[in-house]
Amino acid sequence: MIQEVIVTTRNPSGSPQIAPMGIRRRGELFVIAPFRPSTTLENLLARGCAVVNYTDDVRVFAGCLTGRYGWPVLDANRVDAPRLADPLAHAEVELTEVEDDELRPRLICRPVLEATHRPFQGFNRAQAAVLELAILTSRLDRLPIEKIEREIEYLRIAIDKTAGPREQEAWDWLMARVTEHRRRLETA
Amino acid sequence: MIQEVIVTTRNPSGSPQIAPMGIRRRGELFVIAPFRPSTTLENLLARGCAVVNYTDDVRVFAGCLTGRYGWPVLDANRVDAPRLADPLAHAEVELTEVEDDELRPRLICRPVLEATHRPFQGFNRAQAAVLELAILTSRLDRLPIEKIEREIEYLRIAIDKTAGPREQEAWDWLMARVTEHRRRLETA
Repeated sequence: MIQEVIVTTRNPSGSPQIAPMGIRRRGELFVIAPFRPSTTLENLLARGCAVVNYTDDVRVFAGCLTGRYGWPVLDANRVDAPRLADPLAHAEVELTEVEDDELRPRLICRPVLEATHRPFQGFNRAQAAVLELAILTSRLDRLPIEKIEREIEYLRIAIDKTAGPREQEAWDWLMARVTEHRRRLETA
Repeated sequence: MIQEVIVTTRNPSGSPQIAPMGIRRRGELFVIAPFRPSTTLENLLARGCAVVNYTDDVRVFAGCLTGRYGWPVLDANRVDAPRLADPLAHAEVELTEVEDDELRPRLICRPVLEATHRPFQGFNRAQAAVLELAILTSRLDRLPIEKIEREIEYLRIAIDKTAGPREQEAWDWLMARVTEHRRRLETA
């Protein structure tokens, strides 16, 4: 099972690195497997730690894909990394083992602190639609525009029916990216 | 914003009524709006209370659509209703006002107890795909089979890539229902 989360690490300069990522669990352990090249990978290898942030604010996912990285962070309690200031929950993890791979090394991490901040509010179909659009947006150059537009047409139903302001804002950021891409194709 | 939750109420016989439902918030209040006829509606009017269960176990959603109602429950603390035994969080609510409507009355409820039991584990694309398939399944008789199958083809990608055992089981229950429906169409 893959969980879509926000992984935060500290850059060499001290600034926060905020990255949406699909992670897996292996018993108590976390498996973080960034595709090379990856700043998160370098930071995790350099400092040996990270934070797994469980947020339902889809703007963080859409924002990191559209150049919006300024999400509020705090210092983690037990590891040398920032964490999101307002997630539903977070886990602070230490790197225990690297399973190397040319494409996608697996960083095996163990939790040293887990904290719950606010309750899960139930599923929201618009949040899921934003995540799917985020994935489409990250593959704009590899997918035919007709396929992208057909899937957007389907995803938009959930946005129209179930989105709140956060979901609508995230959706709009991603759609601006799709519109830009379409214009580039048309003028090419 | 619509949150997909499990609403639990107590039947006249005392047995639990477990129903997936999309609810809204109105400030601190909850707006529960079941389509008539609805056992949940009758129970809420009769006893004046319910529990809103926030669970990430999509088997409860898929199960209630496929005749599997035997989910473990406990008595709520503050209201005369059962709650799911193992949700991520739950809210116990009392009915404060009814905005009547022939099709879909709105039951305005206020929370009297809110509890968080386990942390949100991040988004999972397969969970969202199961919810979308559940919605399709509830509309089998109103949608063309070609549309249903096209959407299933798209949703299945997330199942294949990101499902855990719970998501796969829920998906299989719903797909069995779709297969039955297709057979009925073919032999009609």
